[in-house]
Amino acid sequence: MRNLLDTRTLSREDAIGILDVAEDMADTQRREVKKLPTLRGKTVVNLFFEDSTRTRISFEAAAKRLSADVINFSAKGSSVSKGESLQDTAQTLQAMGADAVVIRHGASGAPRTLATSGWITAGVVNAGDGTHEHPTQALLDAFTMRKRRFGSDSRGRDLAGVRVTIVGDILHSRVARSNVWLLTTLGAEVTLVAPATLVPQDVSAWPVTVVYDLDEAIAAGPDVLMMLRIQLERMNAAYFPTEREYSRRWGLDAGRLHTLGPDSIVMHPGPMNRGLEISADAADSPRSTVLEQVANGVSVRMAVLYLLLAGSDPRDEKGDAR
Amino acid sequence: MRNLLDTRTLSREDAIGILDVAEDMADTQRREVKKLPTLRGKTVVNLFFEDSTRTRISFEAAAKRLSADVINFSAKGSSVSKGESLQDTAQTLQAMGADAVVIRHGASGAPRTLATSGWITAGVVNAGDGTHEHPTQALLDAFTMRKRRFGSDSRGRDLAGVRVTIVGDILHSRVARSNVWLLTTLGAEVTLVAPATLVPQDVSAWPVTVVYDLDEAIAAGPDVLMMLRIQLERMNAAYFPTEREYSRRWGLDAGRLHTLGPDSIVMHPGPMNRGLEISADAADSPRSTVLEQVANGVSVRMAVLYLLLAGSDPRDEKGDAR
Amino acid sequence: MRNLLDTRTLSREDAIGILDVAEDMADTQRREVKKLPTLRGKTVVNLFFEDSTRTRISFEAAAKRLSADVINFSAKGSSVSKGESLQDTAQTLQAMGADAVVIRHGASGAPRTLATSGWITAGVVNAGDGTHEHPTQALLDAFTMRKRRFGSDSRGRDLAGVRVTIVGDILHSRVARSNVWLLTTLGAEVTLVAPATLVPQDVSAWPVTVVYDLDEAIAAGPDVLMMLRIQLERMNAAYFPTEREYSRRWGLDAGRLHTLGPDSIVMHPGPMNRGLEISADAADSPRSTVLEQVANGVSVRMAVLYLLLAGSDPRDEKGDAR
Repeated sequence: MRNLLDTRTLSREDAIGILDVAEDMADTQRREVKKLPTLRGKTVVNLFFEDSTRTRISFEAAAKRLSADVINFSAKGSSVSKGESLQDTAQTLQAMGADAVVIRHGASGAPRTLATSGWITAGVVNAGDGTHEHPTQALLDAFTMRKRRFGSDSRGRDLAGVRVTIVGDILHSRVARSNVWLLTTLGAEVTLVAPATLVPQDVSAWPVTVVYDLDEAIAAGPDVLMMLRIQLERMNAAYFPTEREYSRRWGLDAGRLHTLGPDSIVMHPGPMNRGLEISADAADSPRSTVLEQVANGVSVRMAVLYLLLAGSDPRDEKGDAR
Repeated sequence: MRNLLDTRTLSREDAIGILDVAEDMADTQRREVKKLPTLRGKTVVNLFFEDSTRTRISFEAAAKRLSADVINFSAKGSSVSKGESLQDTAQTLQAMGADAVVIRHGASGAPRTLATSGWITAGVVNAGDGTHEHPTQALLDAFTMRKRRFGSDSRGRDLAGVRVTIVGDILHSRVARSNVWLLTTLGAEVTLVAPATLVPQDVSAWPVTVVYDLDEAIAAGPDVLMMLRIQLERMNAAYFPTEREYSRRWGLDAGRLHTLGPDSIVMHPGPMNRGLEISADAADSPRSTVLEQVANGVSVRMAVLYLLLAGSDPRDEKGDAR
Repeated sequence: MRNLLDTRTLSREDAIGILDVAEDMADTQRREVKKLPTLRGKTVVNLFFEDSTRTRISFEAAAKRLSADVINFSAKGSSVSKGESLQDTAQTLQAMGADAVVIRHGASGAPRTLATSGWITAGVVNAGDGTHEHPTQALLDAFTMRKRRFGSDSRGRDLAGVRVTIVGDILHSRVARSNVWLLTTLGAEVTLVAPATLVPQDVSAWPVTVVYDLDEAIAAGPDVLMMLRIQLERMNAAYFPTEREYSRRWGLDAGRLHTLGPDSIVMHPGPMNRGLEISADAADSPRSTVLEQVANGVSVRMAVLYLLLAGSDPRDEKGDAR
């Protein structure tokens, strides 16, 4: 694997391959062999054009446990803010020895541009681009679902038949998009729930079912209920009336929590707006996988960095998520 | 030891235990064996809700010399500034693998809440909370006094009979509070000197003597004169008239320096306002332990991290500073 | 070598010595032995009073490849912004264990003050001070010229007879100053090209030729054409009319690029203002050494840190760039 740019073009085999390596990584963490020498001498640059402490720290922890050196590059106060181009920034980082670039960017497609322009040979990992994709988030979500379903017997499995309902601001969510592509590739059935104003216009081309009523979606008995974070800055009359109204109609509260089937789980990518899209009861219930998702995120990112940097000659590899 | 939250509840035995381990750490540093493998594979998170480069760097240096991985988490620009709760932030950091959380917070009591709420199992170190406590500062101050008094024969000793005078803005100072509790626990006699407006109302319940005149306090012949930093933003008519007036009445200048006894020392937690609470003569005199305090701070923080992370099963431990 | 403060007082022998060690460092990087254990246990502090992500990352990568611990200290939000003096900041960092201080400061001469005041014994590296010097930039530029000229036969060589033309805002450029001193020490012939308003008043005392017309300078057939970055914030009527006018008269565009001799190279310290002082044709042409300069920067900084921190007793050393 040379890059990880999206889940839309990721094959079932490559996706399962990443999840299986992540299982190995999770096992080493569980055995308290926290530090692996695998990437010693490799340099991973976190190139963040948007703030995201949570995602940056997860990649940083993943790289350090593989013994890579990590350099954090925030675009603020850097030559980028002085007008340097993405090309020059990336080529400079590679010239300084970066073996992989983990990029978070406000513009959809920036990671692909970086990876396919010929500017650099370092591996590129998309850590979230505009409203496009956030592939490691979807991979950690799929990992979490698979783990809850199959436990220690997860390796090699897909998510055939798993019914996943994703609730919230689908329109602006790269998390939703990455999950839609990955989960359906892995055989899951995906339903989206949102106010009509927060459903993308092209959703009819997606392999999903759309409903507008959360209670109706819950009554259908999903295995997984994934609540998206509401970006409060998008909360205005154009999309829906008020926080209270949103919470009442599309939030997961105690009442709705109790109507879920006995084995169904509740997911959230974090950070949560407790009391808005998810109540404290739901967030802290045994159904909630919020903290498992965070822990699995480190394992999945270890797997991705490992596959990018410790693999054999990329041309020998069958899969390529470019 | 599971956590270090304050010095008020720290026993004499535990305090001496920490200081003795800090002696061992200082010895390794002196022998140029700067890097110890002890905490390899452990992750220490510096969770700073207030800026404090100096304290953060001291903890970072301490953790790195023990070969721990360090992740710096500044609340600015993070999900915390997007409204995430302390609970969710802390649980997220632990899910990412944090073994210890070093927390600086503007709210008094936040570290205790974190440690006792059951939210996380990682060790918690208070790196300064509101006007409450700053226990590692007091420990490094006590270490410095003990070292000046007993030299290489310090291990196992307390500060019985040592007379310490603390001068400045006691009202707002967590450094003063942590020192009052720790130093009296170790047997020292503590006098506080401050303008009447900067003495806490509940000081009568503290095991200290209060005087309002610095010259009177110096005439009493203290072994240690600890000058606190004046927070210039608090300098307004409510507390005292002007910088010049403060300096004249409660600052340590050359004249007062020369009236100190031959063996007495001058301490300051830094950063110093030279010319305000302490003159350059005093700051740079052989009596000054300012830089010894900084160096000892790294040793003390190494000791605390070591005791939190490399100890045996916490339930086997006699002392617990929780 | 105890410090690296400037190139003006750097002897030919010391300069060649640094470049030769940098060759060794570049060789280890090329052989994929990226991580050397040489400075294990040493601590390098990046003390940056001005933002410079690019330079800071280059020093950080250099230190980490030598296995040193790196602590980044940005003056923003630190005790420095609360008024702490350079003396106290530096002494504090040394007390915490800093073996070398890499300093970027807005005031010309700050690194020399730090190194010669007796405040600290840690090695000091000037990473750019005011409009004074930026010695590692000049060293990496000289390294790049030597490498392009002599290839694997570079060791021990100087730049005798190499004709270097530096173009741009000489008045405010520490890069230009450091290059003038170092390149002439190494035997190169230096020509400066600038608008008359951007030539320093004391330039008649410099060992250089000054011309005001870029086409005339190019017609003279330089071996090296070094384009300086234009600081847009200095672009105002006092210095020259407009960006377009500057670009037309002193920018390197495709037309001028093609009039260069067959073996001449184009340099730029980065970050580039593409389309202003340098066109994309020039920046991306095979003549351009921009990315080689960045890569060589890491090797040169590894060499400097190595010579400061891994050397024998400084008093045994012949050269001293103090």
